[in-house]
Amino acid sequence: MTHKHNHTIHQCHFGWSNANQPVVKIAPGESIEFDPLDSSGGQITPQSTLANLSQLDFGKVNPVAGPVYIDGAEPGDAIKVTLLSFTPSGWGWTANIPGFGLLADQFKDPALHIWKYDPSTLAPAMYGPGGRVPLKPFCGTIGLAPAEPGTHSIVPPRRMGGNMDIRDLSAGTELYLPVEVKGGLFSVGDTHATQGDGEVCGTAIESPCKVAAKFELIKGAHLAFPRFTTPGPVSRHLDSKGYEVTTGIGPDLFEGARQAVMGMVDLLTKRHKMSAVEAYMLCSVCADLRISEIVDMPNWVVSLYFPRVVFE
Amino acid sequence: MTHKHNHTIHQCHFGWSNANQPVVKIAPGESIEFDPLDSSGGQITPQSTLANLSQLDFGKVNPVAGPVYIDGAEPGDAIKVTLLSFTPSGWGWTANIPGFGLLADQFKDPALHIWKYDPSTLAPAMYGPGGRVPLKPFCGTIGLAPAEPGTHSIVPPRRMGGNMDIRDLSAGTELYLPVEVKGGLFSVGDTHATQGDGEVCGTAIESPCKVAAKFELIKGAHLAFPRFTTPGPVSRHLDSKGYEVTTGIGPDLFEGARQAVMGMVDLLTKRHKMSAVEAYMLCSVCADLRISEIVDMPNWVVSLYFPRVVFE
Repeated sequence: MTHKHNHTIHQCHFGWSNANQPVVKIAPGESIEFDPLDSSGGQITPQSTLANLSQLDFGKVNPVAGPVYIDGAEPGDAIKVTLLSFTPSGWGWTANIPGFGLLADQFKDPALHIWKYDPSTLAPAMYGPGGRVPLKPFCGTIGLAPAEPGTHSIVPPRRMGGNMDIRDLSAGTELYLPVEVKGGLFSVGDTHATQGDGEVCGTAIESPCKVAAKFELIKGAHLAFPRFTTPGPVSRHLDSKGYEVTTGIGPDLFEGARQAVMGMVDLLTKRHKMSAVEAYMLCSVCADLRISEIVDMPNWVVSLYFPRVVFE
Repeated sequence: MTHKHNHTIHQCHFGWSNANQPVVKIAPGESIEFDPLDSSGGQITPQSTLANLSQLDFGKVNPVAGPVYIDGAEPGDAIKVTLLSFTPSGWGWTANIPGFGLLADQFKDPALHIWKYDPSTLAPAMYGPGGRVPLKPFCGTIGLAPAEPGTHSIVPPRRMGGNMDIRDLSAGTELYLPVEVKGGLFSVGDTHATQGDGEVCGTAIESPCKVAAKFELIKGAHLAFPRFTTPGPVSRHLDSKGYEVTTGIGPDLFEGARQAVMGMVDLLTKRHKMSAVEAYMLCSVCADLRISEIVDMPNWVVSLYFPRVVFE
């Protein structure tokens, strides 16, 4: 598909700030193709080893392409971003980075997996003995600049979006972001070949992809947080064989999520020839954290849904 | 389908206790049909009004049919429960009960909706102006007795299961429950015609259904929490048109879930002719709470997925 976009943006920045100078100013209705670096900022390559992971410069992680100034956008408006297409690169990486991830206290050693996949067919990516992970490219980080002065880390997401890591921000989705500053100052990056809800080990299949998006302006939307509309089903690439599901039950959702992930790591290592950290990284790229109930006081249920199609 | 089960159980109890006398003792491999009262213990009927809701006797809520003693089950084992079939009644109720539910601070007045549906076709149930809610019967409460002495409320779920309200404990699912006492002492109830992940207003489509289940024994399973296997996809009754999704972003998952639900109530009331409490109850029966990311310190993202098929 040779779609003609109004602009192409390669330039990246490493922090949210309303003082960042726009790379381009556009009118609502225009579209842009972005070509951001991957979330390591190009530090991890298809040839990388564990040694490269331990030398990671965290000052260069999570670059985003932009910012884009949208004419007429003012605080209280929303920018509607239609994600037109993703052009994936064919390789990616998943890592356990010490100190980062839901079970950081249990997985203290670094681990790195390099993925290869066919960017034209997006056939499932192979993982260890017999694993096949279905792919669905999306952008992990997508957002606007905050009103609060200064430069803010790109790691945490905020009400203007950012590093939300919502695995359904994929082709066809329409995302609405609350504007806090004039022009909105949109940036995007941290592209993933796929990920499960939760991104439990802290990384997805981190994979360079080009992203094309169209921008529209919704005046006076007054959104409290981002919202989005998906064009169709969100899990059919994963769900055909059903799920293995583990649970965590108790008064704290965070601890419930940890218990559910521990249960799945235990199940996967018993059934398949993989280490605990390999199972943990596999959960991060394809298993979904759901809140099954949040009302039966005082105990809530968090469930982790692992798609059986990966091994069946 | 006229399947012959080994036993039929109508008798209910109102609290988990390892001192409850078994209604029946079975051998692994046997199956039982249960016919529990609905979660109101029969206090709400198809003719009920708000007045009946405010007279609800909470000492009689959440009855469960059982207990069943499974021969040979001992602490450390798991009972594998295969949910064979649900025979729904054709009516149900959803309520906002003051003091109960994720947004109890905002929805202080009681509300009640009585549902009618076709139990043979399970065609989507009508709701207000134009809403059609797809159905998938399941059991909200299913579990074993605890080792801890005394009688324990059925409202909170525990590691032996109980009121987990997991909407995928439907026909064909295989559930594994950790045994804490000899015989396990299995009970089931709180049947629902359908529910979204989270059960955000505190009630689902509470609906009397017969439940048939087969029991097997897994020696030495040593499960920390319940787990289950679904026979196939879990959301295809809902997902054909995609989703409207709202988010909540911040350092607390519980507050994030609240924000996501508030965002959806706002969206639904603006788009459709319904009050806020009607939108809240609708979310409870069909919208899914997911943890989109739980690793981008210090802010997590909780998303509420509302199936567009309800209105499209």
